[in-house]
Amino acid sequence: MSVLSLCLTSTGLTAMTTALLDTLRRIVGAAHVLTEGDLAAYEQDWRKRSHGKSLAVVRPGSTAEVAAVVRACADAGVAIVPQGGNTGLSVGSTPDGSGTQVVLSLTRMNAVRAIDRDNLTMTVEAGCILQALQETAEKADLLFPLSLAAEGSCTIGGNLSTNAGGTQVVRYGNTRELCLGLEVVTPQGEVWNGLSGLRKDNTGYDLRDLYIGSEGTLGIITAATMKLFPQPAAQLTAWAAVPSMAAAVRLLGLSHQHLGAGLTGFEVMGQFALSLVIKHMPQLRVPFAGLDGAPPYYVLLENSDSESEEHARQRFEALLELAFEDGCVLDAVVAESLSQAHELWHIRESIPLAQAEEGLNIKHDISIAASRIPAFVEHTDALLQREIPGVRLVNFGHLGDGNLHYNVQAPAGGDAREFLRTQEDRVNALVYDAVAQFDGSFSAEHGVGVLKADKLAQYKSPVALGLMRAIKQALDPQGLMNPGCILQK
Amino acid sequence: MSVLSLCLTSTGLTAMTTALLDTLRRIVGAAHVLTEGDLAAYEQDWRKRSHGKSLAVVRPGSTAEVAAVVRACADAGVAIVPQGGNTGLSVGSTPDGSGTQVVLSLTRMNAVRAIDRDNLTMTVEAGCILQALQETAEKADLLFPLSLAAEGSCTIGGNLSTNAGGTQVVRYGNTRELCLGLEVVTPQGEVWNGLSGLRKDNTGYDLRDLYIGSEGTLGIITAATMKLFPQPAAQLTAWAAVPSMAAAVRLLGLSHQHLGAGLTGFEVMGQFALSLVIKHMPQLRVPFAGLDGAPPYYVLLENSDSESEEHARQRFEALLELAFEDGCVLDAVVAESLSQAHELWHIRESIPLAQAEEGLNIKHDISIAASRIPAFVEHTDALLQREIPGVRLVNFGHLGDGNLHYNVQAPAGGDAREFLRTQEDRVNALVYDAVAQFDGSFSAEHGVGVLKADKLAQYKSPVALGLMRAIKQALDPQGLMNPGCILQK
Repeated sequence: MSVLSLCLTSTGLTAMTTALLDTLRRIVGAAHVLTEGDLAAYEQDWRKRSHGKSLAVVRPGSTAEVAAVVRACADAGVAIVPQGGNTGLSVGSTPDGSGTQVVLSLTRMNAVRAIDRDNLTMTVEAGCILQALQETAEKADLLFPLSLAAEGSCTIGGNLSTNAGGTQVVRYGNTRELCLGLEVVTPQGEVWNGLSGLRKDNTGYDLRDLYIGSEGTLGIITAATMKLFPQPAAQLTAWAAVPSMAAAVRLLGLSHQHLGAGLTGFEVMGQFALSLVIKHMPQLRVPFAGLDGAPPYYVLLENSDSESEEHARQRFEALLELAFEDGCVLDAVVAESLSQAHELWHIRESIPLAQAEEGLNIKHDISIAASRIPAFVEHTDALLQREIPGVRLVNFGHLGDGNLHYNVQAPAGGDAREFLRTQEDRVNALVYDAVAQFDGSFSAEHGVGVLKADKLAQYKSPVALGLMRAIKQALDPQGLMNPGCILQK
Repeated sequence: MSVLSLCLTSTGLTAMTTALLDTLRRIVGAAHVLTEGDLAAYEQDWRKRSHGKSLAVVRPGSTAEVAAVVRACADAGVAIVPQGGNTGLSVGSTPDGSGTQVVLSLTRMNAVRAIDRDNLTMTVEAGCILQALQETAEKADLLFPLSLAAEGSCTIGGNLSTNAGGTQVVRYGNTRELCLGLEVVTPQGEVWNGLSGLRKDNTGYDLRDLYIGSEGTLGIITAATMKLFPQPAAQLTAWAAVPSMAAAVRLLGLSHQHLGAGLTGFEVMGQFALSLVIKHMPQLRVPFAGLDGAPPYYVLLENSDSESEEHARQRFEALLELAFEDGCVLDAVVAESLSQAHELWHIRESIPLAQAEEGLNIKHDISIAASRIPAFVEHTDALLQREIPGVRLVNFGHLGDGNLHYNVQAPAGGDAREFLRTQEDRVNALVYDAVAQFDGSFSAEHGVGVLKADKLAQYKSPVALGLMRAIKQALDPQGLMNPGCILQK
């Protein structure tokens, strides 16, 4: 506990705190220092698992203002929690309950600073909403391929700070791979202008990638130069029923081989996950999954083609023919229109909501080498059934990236809240131990946040943790940048 | 100067040094601690610009041996220079002249530990020769796309430590983008097993990318898990004469749009560069470039197709038709056979040798946003002509990545050695200042090494340098890992 919070406990706002708030008001304008009213949108996380209390929510409008805010807080020894759209799933952008931390919201910094068509890049501020950037690119007849469920609310700064993944990673990579350069305010309030449209630049340590995925614990990303791509001439979606997870992995290999970089999406869904969609969204027609004896897994494939829809269709048909022969596909349908394609994606995207309708559940965002996923699923499904009879597995995710949302639902008819209360830690231990046994990751695309900081301490090697702590100590010796996030306090 | 080197100066091998050499012999075997005979292959750099003297060349055969060597050197306060194939162009893998540094050669660690076909990865030791890895992948009917001039001698550890580029970056990225995980021996002699076949893993700071490109100054890369790709069904090469650098950039945009990810190579060559090939390798037939009034620039394009050669040819022809209409291509030829394709690539790859035949020259490895390259070239060509009348520019490189080897040759008939002696610093200043003015990089793919450490100090922002120094100090507080490389002593 810092000196400041001790003072607060005994006397409320101290003179020092009051002075800091005055300084912050001078820097960003009084209207952008929020201390009263309902601040829940800033103080509680997306899934409402954490309810914090901030000293203030500060909303700077420029990089210079961010730097000045950071310097003022550093001088006062006050911690900062940077925040974008606050849609994270690992509690990485909300304050703790002490009332001593400043939430620094980047949402006012939402300018697209430049689009460079010949270089296929755009330079954007951290507070830009992801969907707005997709639209900006589209208006320039280009593609910004990052796409994920929260795209209507999340910001590119948040995407960068958590290295967000999503549905196009199999072709375009994570947010990391889409970024060429950053502008960052350091914990000392200095501005590192690392904005760059360069695709090759080997001049010293890779500060860009160190900041990407560091969840605001080493400084604050204020802008970035992101890659753009030509719009594909056509995008086709297919839906296939497969006899096993091993068959799904075989289909992935065939798809890589025959579609090459045309393969822009490869999602897997378990039969139970789809049965929840059928149950709770009866208006959706889910191909092949509604029948008795329905196949155990389904794959949604997307093929993006630089030539034409006709060519994309030919390539898809050739692939599916091979897959039928191989036996890794039982049944398949290729969307006939864009609206059919949207419907298929909509089914996939409805799983989290259907799952919520069914009741509270325990979420996991894990990754395993694709080659080992069939064995992992067989092992862990059986393990959970043995340990918790009747437990239901909502298994779906980005198989093309080895990324599963391997979620656990209470046994049918059971009390879901009670199940979570009594079983969550045990289920997590079973799943994460199995993940570790298969050399996987306990957080594929959602980051660590505060929520999984204990898992990092548990599952990361002491050598890796030592390196991370040394870096944190070197760059943020006061420990004021998003404390407790990633590395435990 | 360290205490040890002071002792050496006065008394030759001290008791401490002798004890260290004995320890090193116990760790790796006496046969693998080289202290006598001709060690030039280890002590002098590829371009023979630096002639060092080592205390010993140590050749460990396993990660455990590397770790033990590092611990022994750390205990003795002796610096280590890690070395792979020693083919670097920036003097980053040879010892200084003090005779106090240990060269740690990784070449005995050359096992392919695993190939995972379903996961499209291979795990390999740092000393594997790049070409051997290309062949290993090919035997598994897969592609390892990293390709560069030194591939017959350079090692993957060296490629990783310098984040090497090469000819396929436009599609597959630099070495960084091809790596999923690393095994590293830290400066304290601990082993970080960060080997991973995961395509998504957001658990803490990105240690992998921090080590990639750090040129052995933060620890020693001993193994890596690298991405593999399906072999393309066909690969076609075309050669186009273009009326200007701006036209070449326009052709790049058209190629991205119409070939999509099929575009796997996009090289530009200036007319003077090709004239040297014609002069010094008369057996090579260089399309369109030999005539009076020949166009100023030429582009070599490669199209990799997951379907068929026929389809690749169709796509190339459609692209070139559009390019003719646009006016950005004056003349073009598509290779009819694999041997013709090899011939075209051979012309491109012969430029450095032709240039050497013409005489000593001043090399630059720069990158600029593709959109700004025409203006940069126009500006800098004119600047150099004005400052050094008659100077000749050998301009070629990976335009698809914004990377030019913008090399400067003495005026015709002049004394090249004298030109270098009197003009090299001036030419470098003119070129690098221009690069900085166009927000480019003074080292696109060759790294910093010792050779360009002064350029890093000059052209990098103080904030970036401060961050780099803090990281170096945090991870290597004794300063024993490749001292003077990247960051000046």
